[in-house]
Order: sequence, then C-alpha cells, then structure tokens
Amino acid sequence: MPKNAFYAQSGGVTAVINASACGVIETARKHPDKIGKVYAGRNGIIGALTEDLIDTSQESDADIAALRHTPAGAFGSCRFKLKGLDQSKAEYERLIEVFKAHDIGYFFYNGGGDSQDTSHKVSQIGEKMGYPITCVGVPKTVDNDLPITDNCPGFGSVAKYIAVSIREASFDVASMAKTSTKVFVLEVMGRHAGWIAAAGGLAAEKEGDGPHIILFPEIPLDKDKFLAKVKDAVDKYEYCSIVVSEGVKNAEGKFLAEAGTRDAFGHTQLGGVAPVVAQMVKDALGYKYHWAVADYLQRAARHIASKTDVEQAYALGKVAVELAVAGKNAVMPTVVRVSDNPYKWEIGSANLADVANVEKKMPRDYITADGFGITESCRRYLQPLILGEDYPPYENGLPKYVQLKNVAVPKKLSSTYTLKK
Amino acid sequence: MPKNAFYAQSGGVTAVINASACGVIETARKHPDKIGKVYAGRNGIIGALTEDLIDTSQESDADIAALRHTPAGAFGSCRFKLKGLDQSKAEYERLIEVFKAHDIGYFFYNGGGDSQDTSHKVSQIGEKMGYPITCVGVPKTVDNDLPITDNCPGFGSVAKYIAVSIREASFDVASMAKTSTKVFVLEVMGRHAGWIAAAGGLAAEKEGDGPHIILFPEIPLDKDKFLAKVKDAVDKYEYCSIVVSEGVKNAEGKFLAEAGTRDAFGHTQLGGVAPVVAQMVKDALGYKYHWAVADYLQRAARHIASKTDVEQAYALGKVAVELAVAGKNAVMPTVVRVSDNPYKWEIGSANLADVANVEKKMPRDYITADGFGITESCRRYLQPLILGEDYPPYENGLPKYVQLKNVAVPKKLSSTYTLKK
Repeated sequence: MPKNAFYAQSGGVTAVINASACGVIETARKHPDKIGKVYAGRNGIIGALTEDLIDTSQESDADIAALRHTPAGAFGSCRFKLKGLDQSKAEYERLIEVFKAHDIGYFFYNGGGDSQDTSHKVSQIGEKMGYPITCVGVPKTVDNDLPITDNCPGFGSVAKYIAVSIREASFDVASMAKTSTKVFVLEVMGRHAGWIAAAGGLAAEKEGDGPHIILFPEIPLDKDKFLAKVKDAVDKYEYCSIVVSEGVKNAEGKFLAEAGTRDAFGHTQLGGVAPVVAQMVKDALGYKYHWAVADYLQRAARHIASKTDVEQAYALGKVAVELAVAGKNAVMPTVVRVSDNPYKWEIGSANLADVANVEKKMPRDYITADGFGITESCRRYLQPLILGEDYPPYENGLPKYVQLKNVAVPKKLSSTYTLKK
Repeated sequence: MPKNAFYAQSGGVTAVINASACGVIETARKHPDKIGKVYAGRNGIIGALTEDLIDTSQESDADIAALRHTPAGAFGSCRFKLKGLDQSKAEYERLIEVFKAHDIGYFFYNGGGDSQDTSHKVSQIGEKMGYPITCVGVPKTVDNDLPITDNCPGFGSVAKYIAVSIREASFDVASMAKTSTKVFVLEVMGRHAGWIAAAGGLAAEKEGDGPHIILFPEIPLDKDKFLAKVKDAVDKYEYCSIVVSEGVKNAEGKFLAEAGTRDAFGHTQLGGVAPVVAQMVKDALGYKYHWAVADYLQRAARHIASKTDVEQAYALGKVAVELAVAGKNAVMPTVVRVSDNPYKWEIGSANLADVANVEKKMPRDYITADGFGITESCRRYLQPLILGEDYPPYENGLPKYVQLKNVAVPKKLSSTYTLKK
C-alpha cells in the first residue's frame, strides 16, 4: 500500500499558491503506485496538529484543475511557526501520532521562509524521532525573500498587479493634474524588503512615465530630498506618481506608518503610510493629493496574475511531488533562471538546510543612487517575472473561482490537541 | 467647407472615457462632408478658453483606435464649471471667440452632471448670443448619477473592479481567518451615492460569500447594529468582509472619514474611512483587521474593464456625432435598457434641458431592509453592467496604453485668457 501525503499551505496566501496545490495534487494522482491519498491540512499545519485533515480525493479532477486559476488558500492557511525539536517536542510527537494514524509518508509544506524552516525540522523527524517521512518544501511568498530560488511564486503576480495599477493610476493623475490632483501615492506590501515597491518601477518605461518616485524600506526617508524630487516631477510633468512600501522608515529608523497619524484618542494608527506621505507633500508643497492602499487586493489579484508566475507555481508543486516519489527528502524545488532575454527558466532543487533561516535581500545596486528608483539590472531581473497574462474563466461578469468541498478525513485518534493561543 | 468640431473631457476620468473619445473621433472621420477636424480641448474646457486646442487629425487611425483600450483622459480633463450665461458672460464670449477663430460648429462635451449642465448652457449660445453651434453631451461618470440614461459609462468598469477585488480579497481573508486576519474593509468611491459600494455586493452570490456587509452613504451608520453584524459573520463564516463607501456618515450626519482620525498635530485627516471602520471593529470586538483603499485604482482599472461598459462608452461617442451631423442640438445620447436577462441595450437620446441639474439617486429598495446589503432588484440592475471582459493588449507584461502626440493647433487669437484660480 502506498503511503498517503500531507499537504499544507502556510503563511500569507497569494494569487498562485493554489496553482502549486494543483501541481501537487494532479501530480500525486499520476503516481498511485507511490502515493495514496493527498490529505490537506485544514488551516495549514494546524490541521495536522488537530487531526483536521481534508480528503482531497473527494474533489473532482475539474475542481482540482480549477485551483490553478483560484487565488488564496483553498484549504486555509495559518500563521503558526513550529519551534525547534528540542523546544517543541510535544508538537512533533503529535505530528508523528497523526501521520502514523493516517499512514502519511510524504509531507509537502507550501510557504515562505518560516515555513521552510518548519519543513526542514519535519524532515529531520525520521532520523531524530524514528518516523520515516519524505519532506519536500514548496516555495511561496510575495516577499520574494527565499534564497537560492531565482524568485518566489506569488511575487510575480503581485509585481504585475502593482506595475499595472500604478501605470493606470498615473494615467489618471496625469489627466487631472492641470486643475486637480497633482500627487498620487500608492502603498504596497513589503515590510522588510522593497521587492514589491521596485516592481512598480516597471511601469515607467520612458522619461516622464509614472511612477516618478519609489520609497523603499531599504532607504531611510530623506524628507528634503524626497520633497525636492516631488516638486521636480510636478514642475516637469505636471504631476508626481509615487509608490511607497509599507515598510519605509524615517531617518530615526521608525516606521513612517507609525510615526505619522494618531486616532481621535491619541492612539497610534497602524498601517497606512500612504496618507502620511501624501500629507507630508501637502503640508510642504500644497499639492492636492490622492492615495491608495492596495493591501490584500495586491496579493489576491488572480484576475491579473502573471502567466510566468502561475506556470512556475504549478511546476514547483509538480516537481515537489516528483522529488518525493524519487525518494528525495529535505529538499525544495527552485526556479532557476537560464536566460533573461528571451526569458528561460527551469526547475532545480535546493536542500532545505540551505534555505531555512536565510533571507534574500534586494541588492543595493537594484536601487538608483538617489534611492528613489530602480536600476537597469533590477529591471532586467524583474521584467520577466510579470510576463504573460493567465486570465481565469468568468461567469456573470466575475472570475469563477472554485470553492472545494473540503471533506474531513474521519478522525482516528481519541486524543486531541489544543492549540496554544 | 464643413465646420470643425470641439471635443473635451470633463471632471474625474474613467477607464472608458477614451473609448467615448474614440467613438467621437472615428465617427467624425467617417463624415468628412459634415465635420472638418476634431479639435480636443487640452485639459477640457480650459483648452477652449485658453485657445489651447489639440489637433486630433495629426493622430494615426491606429492611435485613435487604441484610445478604446486606454484609461483616463487622453487630452487631459479638468474640474471647472461654467456658471450661467448671466453670471459668466465673459467666458461664453471667449468661447465664441475661440470657436469662431477655429471655425468650430460642433461641441461635444464628455462628462457627468456638472458637465452636462455646461453642455446645456453652451447649446443655448446660438440662440442667446448669436453663435450657431451644435452641442451634444456625451455622458460619463463613475458615480452613475445622470438621469434618463439607464447607466453611465465608466460606472460598469468600476463596478466590475470592485466586485472582482472584494471577491478576491474575501477569498484571501477566508484563508487566513483561523489564526490571523478576521475582518477586511475595502473603501470605495461614492461620496453621495452608494452605486459603487452596491456593486461590491455582486461578488456575494450565495450564503457566506463576501462581502458580508456593505456600508452605504444613504444609510447613517448604526454602530451597534453594524458591530453585531460583524460578529455574526465571524461567528458563522470565521471572517467578515466589508465594503464601505467613502461617503458613509455617522448618526450625527458627519462623514465617518472626518470624524475618526487626526494626524499627529491634531488636524483632521481627510479620506480614509476604511481605517476608521476597521479600528471601530478592533476596539469593540478585538478582531485582527486589514483594510484597503482603492481610490484611483478603481476608476483607472482598464485592465479589468467591463466589456459592456466599453461598448456603451464607444457607442455613446459614436451616436453623439451621428446626432450632431443630423442637426440635433442640446441633446445627449443615453443607454436604454431593453431587457435584463438576456441583457439587451440600445442607444437613445435625451434633451440636455432634462439632464442638467438632475441627480439620479439609488432607490431605497436597492438596499436591504437592514441597510447592509443589496436586494435582488439591485442585483438585477447591476449585474449586466459588469458583463464581459475587454482586455487591452500587453507588452513587456504591461497593458499597452496609447499616449497621443497631442499636437497643438496654432493659435489664431492675439487675445489671451487667464484662468481664475
């Protein structure tokens, strides 16, 4: 009897994490000699700990195929990090208990840095705790900060959404600038790294195109230089279009989003660096402004996903299963860039030991010397990641996203597990 | 010699106002016996007052065709309202001076309520001031508040963007709700009417789908009822997805966006009702939240425009010219709904006298009795307006929007006109 597989989604979801799930499940179904059923964790690893497993074999081939064009986490995700084997022995023992009860021999963990650290720890329980399991990580993160892989699935689609959105909004502001709005500020995700903000820069392909300014978390805001640059753009082009990362800090190293506004009771208002930046411009230069905060819209925007991103997300899920059935443990498939132009990529693999706890930073030479734009090398890196459109099917004017039945696997254990809050 | 035409874009731009421009210019080019050149006002009516005209005959057929898939105002728009003939006689005289100098016999004004009021006044200068001109309004407004026409071009595309976005974000929050974000708030445009907020309701097609709550400007916020409804959604579905109109007011009739937050100096922070609503939920119920403000992204989102909207915008521009060459003055083409399902429409026409200064409100029976959702009759009205996709072409992963040459018509007048600030 082939062993069953466990698959879970972890951390912040993306427009294409379900494409990886689709790759995992469709490929597992092609290897019935090696893999029995694929059980998904309801709400990620929590589903394993609480023995709340979803039987994906109850889903039709058509519904599994539809995962490829459905955003967010079809089985639920969670923010829950397992500590080391020493500190959290009870949790690993619980995992083994559940895996054993459901005859699980494969573990696929679809997530970012923290999750691949967990994958790595789970991959060691065979050796350290005597429960043989083949553990393969599946990369995912809009933050694009996993090492070794050229890029992370999820990022390309956010990048495309932001580049498209700031191009469109820049056209809008340019139309209105004569008598109305002169400054537009779009806030994007990326608390620690400016990858997403940088992607906005792709929209500016020639002199004068928006965005005219990008504010990165890597570059502490020099207010005077920033304001001078805003004025310069308005003088030259009649308007100024700005992309700001949520993680931008002031010269004192404080998040601008926290330094700025307070609610009526004097509490710090969290989130919302865009209004702070817009107000800063208004106070100093008097320009009328508008601002937008994309928040979840950006990472859920499957309707404008990058085709490259979708294909890579699927391929990474597929290869994860192929690695597992080939007996590889403690690995993670990666995107390997073969060439920039024409863009070519293939799937490689990395050891989880080399992935865990390593964060890929944006190189300083991807940001222009003045700190407000992207360089040609950055553009060369980012450009291919947003290539191609992969539109979902529509019904009643809306994208037809699948909601799975998510039938629970009958529990086999009498013991229960209570999550610590 | 046929007379030239003047075309101008007015007020807030949309994803499809250029489709109307495309309809006007392409149709004018088919009537060289009746219409000479089409001159566009640079930055709307200001271009006429300052004799800053754009010669659209310098643009290639291909570039004019590309207007159909390009958002925002290709010639620039403005917020500038002409007062009545009595109060602003000098401005009307200036218009006539410019029209006479450039042999302009047709006036096409592409805008919303205020603009059609201006169209109406200009249509009277033939009779009242002795300058014969054929004046036809072209409707446009994301606010969907023009009378007589079944709907306004620009609205359907915003409606589609908001419905798609809240569906996607709702999928995202649903995935995360177990351990993280439970409440998501999306702020949309519509200071005076809830049409756009209502469109978000289209995303909820069955029990449990987001959005679970819509906050309309028509319904003063009952905080206790609202919070109870948020709690109910979280209890039932694990999360609550909310669409809030920027124009929502509290029980005292004040904009919630203004009542809530102050900046660090105690100034009222304008804009941003989403964070106020999110914080209200957090304070009362403790749920983790995320919020987004779509702002210009929603009205510029040509990448996800409604095909119905694009086709209507084009047709209205086309018919405006056909009405003009047929000698109709002081009219505006309208969308006439022939049937809901299957949706059929045709172009009719209204007298500008009946359009000017009349605002179409959202019927109370489009909002559910509890004030937090849309009714079936509202859905029946809105649904067809978001039907169909009309994707722009892409290059380098980005929509290929046209930027016209916008060559100025040589000035003929020695007199100048200075805009009052």
